[in-house]
Amino acid sequence: MIRQLDHVAIAVPNLDEAVPFYRDVLGLPFLYFEEVTDQKVRVACFDLGGMRLELLQPSSEDSPISKFLAQRGPGLHHLAFRSDDVASELERVRGHGVRLIDESPRSGAGGMQIAFLHPKSTQGVLMELTQPGEHVE
Amino acid sequence: MIRQLDHVAIAVPNLDEAVPFYRDVLGLPFLYFEEVTDQKVRVACFDLGGMRLELLQPSSEDSPISKFLAQRGPGLHHLAFRSDDVASELERVRGHGVRLIDESPRSGAGGMQIAFLHPKSTQGVLMELTQPGEHVE
Repeated sequence: MIRQLDHVAIAVPNLDEAVPFYRDVLGLPFLYFEEVTDQKVRVACFDLGGMRLELLQPSSEDSPISKFLAQRGPGLHHLAFRSDDVASELERVRGHGVRLIDESPRSGAGGMQIAFLHPKSTQGVLMELTQPGEHVE
Repeated sequence: MIRQLDHVAIAVPNLDEAVPFYRDVLGLPFLYFEEVTDQKVRVACFDLGGMRLELLQPSSEDSPISKFLAQRGPGLHHLAFRSDDVASELERVRGHGVRLIDESPRSGAGGMQIAFLHPKSTQGVLMELTQPGEHVE
């Protein structure tokens, strides 16, 4: 069951320029920085009423975010939906013909179980499913 | 003060194809259809835990959504932040050098007061500020 957003992710070339905009101009509460090595991104997280707004800066030239920025420029990158069971949700959407980027859940930042769905089969939007890890409840 | 999302908006070429995906595959609770004539869009709204996910289909060829779809294809279109005072928020962000699409709040759907900020000065993301109308509290 998907009932809420976990986060909205935005691709930016430079956190040093983007963070002050979100923190000082929009006034969003800044939470923390994070390095997600397997996605080759540096992340800045803000609180948005129980969900997060995440800014993603590529940490290397072969990061998926580098490719996104080169093709489309900075902007909205993906939506992450909170699920209480990513594995069964993946099976369910696969049964509807949705193409999966991750065939099974994998470990993401903060002990989350995550999986991405391919935008070709989700009406053009890159979507992530997230589930809090059992040891970080 | 911005503390939460009001909605996430997604541009789609065809609500008849997109609505079943969000309703039946993702399983999001469908709320209502809406015609927003001054933006030349048909909107389908889903509940997402106290905020909305909105699908925007152009209702004419000169709709801003037609232009977006032609340039970028279907996908994430804008973020709307809930404010309790859009007029003062506009003045505040203008003071930080943010370029405004709407110089003052205007009436949107459902009695909301709304205003858009230009993506050139918001790190590449089209942003809307929304405020519930006084008569629809």
